[in-house]
Amino acid sequence: MITPRTPSGVLELLPPDQVAFQRMLDVIRSGYERFGFLPIQTPVFERSDVLLTKTGGETERQVYFVQSTGALEKARGEDVEGTPELALRFDLTVPLARYVAEHEHQLTFPFRRYQMQQVYRGERPQRGRFREFYQCDVDVIGKDELSVRHDAECPAVIHSIFTELAIGPFTIQLNNRKVLRGFYEDLGIVDPDQQAAVLREVDKLDKRGPDYLRTTLTGEAFGLSEAVVEQILAFVQVRSEGHEDALARLAEVESGSRGSESLAQGVAELREVLSLVRAMGVPQSDYRLNFSIARGLDYYTGTVYETTLDQHPAIGSICSGGRYDNLAGQYTKSRLPGVGISIGLSRLFWQLREAGLLTDSTGQSTVQVLVPQVDAALLDDQLALASQLRSGGINTEAVLDGGKLGKQLRYADRAGIRFVAILGPQEMADSTVTLKDLRRQDQFTVPREEVVSALRVELAQPQV
Amino acid sequence: MITPRTPSGVLELLPPDQVAFQRMLDVIRSGYERFGFLPIQTPVFERSDVLLTKTGGETERQVYFVQSTGALEKARGEDVEGTPELALRFDLTVPLARYVAEHEHQLTFPFRRYQMQQVYRGERPQRGRFREFYQCDVDVIGKDELSVRHDAECPAVIHSIFTELAIGPFTIQLNNRKVLRGFYEDLGIVDPDQQAAVLREVDKLDKRGPDYLRTTLTGEAFGLSEAVVEQILAFVQVRSEGHEDALARLAEVESGSRGSESLAQGVAELREVLSLVRAMGVPQSDYRLNFSIARGLDYYTGTVYETTLDQHPAIGSICSGGRYDNLAGQYTKSRLPGVGISIGLSRLFWQLREAGLLTDSTGQSTVQVLVPQVDAALLDDQLALASQLRSGGINTEAVLDGGKLGKQLRYADRAGIRFVAILGPQEMADSTVTLKDLRRQDQFTVPREEVVSALRVELAQPQV
Repeated sequence: MITPRTPSGVLELLPPDQVAFQRMLDVIRSGYERFGFLPIQTPVFERSDVLLTKTGGETERQVYFVQSTGALEKARGEDVEGTPELALRFDLTVPLARYVAEHEHQLTFPFRRYQMQQVYRGERPQRGRFREFYQCDVDVIGKDELSVRHDAECPAVIHSIFTELAIGPFTIQLNNRKVLRGFYEDLGIVDPDQQAAVLREVDKLDKRGPDYLRTTLTGEAFGLSEAVVEQILAFVQVRSEGHEDALARLAEVESGSRGSESLAQGVAELREVLSLVRAMGVPQSDYRLNFSIARGLDYYTGTVYETTLDQHPAIGSICSGGRYDNLAGQYTKSRLPGVGISIGLSRLFWQLREAGLLTDSTGQSTVQVLVPQVDAALLDDQLALASQLRSGGINTEAVLDGGKLGKQLRYADRAGIRFVAILGPQEMADSTVTLKDLRRQDQFTVPREEVVSALRVELAQPQV
Repeated sequence: MITPRTPSGVLELLPPDQVAFQRMLDVIRSGYERFGFLPIQTPVFERSDVLLTKTGGETERQVYFVQSTGALEKARGEDVEGTPELALRFDLTVPLARYVAEHEHQLTFPFRRYQMQQVYRGERPQRGRFREFYQCDVDVIGKDELSVRHDAECPAVIHSIFTELAIGPFTIQLNNRKVLRGFYEDLGIVDPDQQAAVLREVDKLDKRGPDYLRTTLTGEAFGLSEAVVEQILAFVQVRSEGHEDALARLAEVESGSRGSESLAQGVAELREVLSLVRAMGVPQSDYRLNFSIARGLDYYTGTVYETTLDQHPAIGSICSGGRYDNLAGQYTKSRLPGVGISIGLSRLFWQLREAGLLTDSTGQSTVQVLVPQVDAALLDDQLALASQLRSGGINTEAVLDGGKLGKQLRYADRAGIRFVAILGPQEMADSTVTLKDLRRQDQFTVPREEVVSALRVELAQPQV
């Protein structure tokens, strides 16, 4: 006998959690669709030569390779040491690039797609780090060009989704890589490598504090003046409060500039994005400028986003993304600029569960009604009642094994099934059904022909 | 530059087909949920020692193994030739067995689960054979025992789903392995290996015809009498027509028996299943007895199912399954009998598309309304209209790039978006919106505050 074990580093859920997870996936998907994004799916594996064109370093070390039994045996037999032919996707961006480049002539641009699939990384196992996890990505890809207006849609769709997920107040943080670049250019830090090195140090501000930064940046390796470091510290601590304040902060940065074109362009882009985010109905309390956000240094080129839970800052960004100049330069000569954002749902779900923030949605089954077996002689009638409920669109479990009614009710309660529809000899005689609401501990009898409409009314009411 | 290519043997879809595929997944899922089944998901890979306990032969040859970069290098460095630690699931049954055995004490039995995920097999590439394909499984697992009544639920849920999928008339074919076993026992073919060998030959009836069977079974290898072979031929050609005929066929088989207990038990089970299938509301035209169905010889032990499209018999069974005695004997001492059925959706989708049966559902976008950019000065108002539509639950794409209205309308038409909501200077002045129905080639103007309800009425109507 083999001990049944899940592989380490995966988030396998029991049904009540799976139901809660599935609800979150559904909310995200319907949010993406409400904003007019189209679904795509790509295979779990890609050809290794296609997948691994751009990566290197940490990502490539984490790739999982895939080999059929035949290929494995052949490689061993011939002592071949080449890369296996297939590898599991480690994100949804490279597969998107491959998809768009491969199907370019069959797609309409701007190409608006969402994609919600699992990705794979050979991480060292640790709490809250997964080797298989869901990413829920949404991107708009232009051909040759893509107006900065699209950069406003990501905050709008994310706002709509996180509002519906009801996981507490959150703030969408905005920045622009061109503003960052221009700001450092203005300070005389022009070399991209030097900029990147400074940004990496600045990124440690939260963890190590301003004094670490002062010492490091004025030290030998960087050689910045104290005045410059103070300017940097003031800049990265900018957090706007409300729409007008965001515009004022932009004006401030602009007026302090020594003429960087990049900064001027970034400020103009942020102005347009802020204006459209407001026009799309996002309340001004829910977005802000945050000049400390940099994100993937060599990937994003314009707007960048992070999203944080106001009451749980330790969780960090739960949804990030930004604008990039060219999606698929490794696959096509066409220039494909885009903008997108991604929710790492497995990690978010795990964090919310750890923080005890899932209590509302867990413990509720997808099953809405249980039809117990009250009397074996009435089994056919009970099955007919279950069919009637299902035809009315109500998720119904019919008990087929029997047993005492009390035991069946306890089962429904434990399983998170809210209603029990009892059809006993008395109900048969009266053409009625007795409905028990296990959540409200309430019971009432309705005419048989009204059972669907009565339950629909109950199910539409907010749950206690 | 690398040529972007999908790996061979996968079904990657363009958005219109992906939308149609997703609709089918949604219908199947909501069908499973309507019958009170709970969702689970298992990781794409399992530990090889856990996954490969039972298999052998063809299945094991088709397994894909998974190795992280580190593991791959280590195996090479140390010249290790053991099996890699992880392998991709090749069906959803073994992962279900592992899941139920591992979480046995946290599950409630009978455990009713559905699971819709992709599985992986290193098939030789050929038309309509996929290396990655969706299985949509539904199973009920009992602890120690599971009443045969559950065997009636599979036909009922499948009937509900295929009716909603609207892919034409279909028939659910029922048989019982105990009837088969008993029938051959009565003929003196008692040895299980001999039975299996005979069944394998009988399975070739459709392809090779009765004369092949007569020659083979009376030949040296089998040595059956001509009379016995004629009995077999008559038996496997039984197809009932309607409920009463099914019962009559069972009575006939029973009365012809020489006393096999297995046959008597199988007939009793089929009687109960037929009775409950009817009680669950499945019309008698849509199910039948078919004594030729055997399915997995060493796996199923009682009821077995196949489903065929009446107008496309060449497609073969689109949904199969049956009853098994013990799900997880390799992982636990608990006896876990179950019954289930599986839809191989990728293959079914591909077959329906090849047969031209998808025309109704393809070409329709998930996007229901396009808000074009009529006048750049009105962009904020157009975005507010888009927000209004989305708040009303209508999937809406707002055009952000502009361009001529005619071009935007052509885009909507090509993309399968049915409605265009125009907000120009005239509509602004009148507080109205002009709605174009591209499918009906119709146009009407509604008050701005009624745009959501007007569109909802239109979208609820059957499409032309």
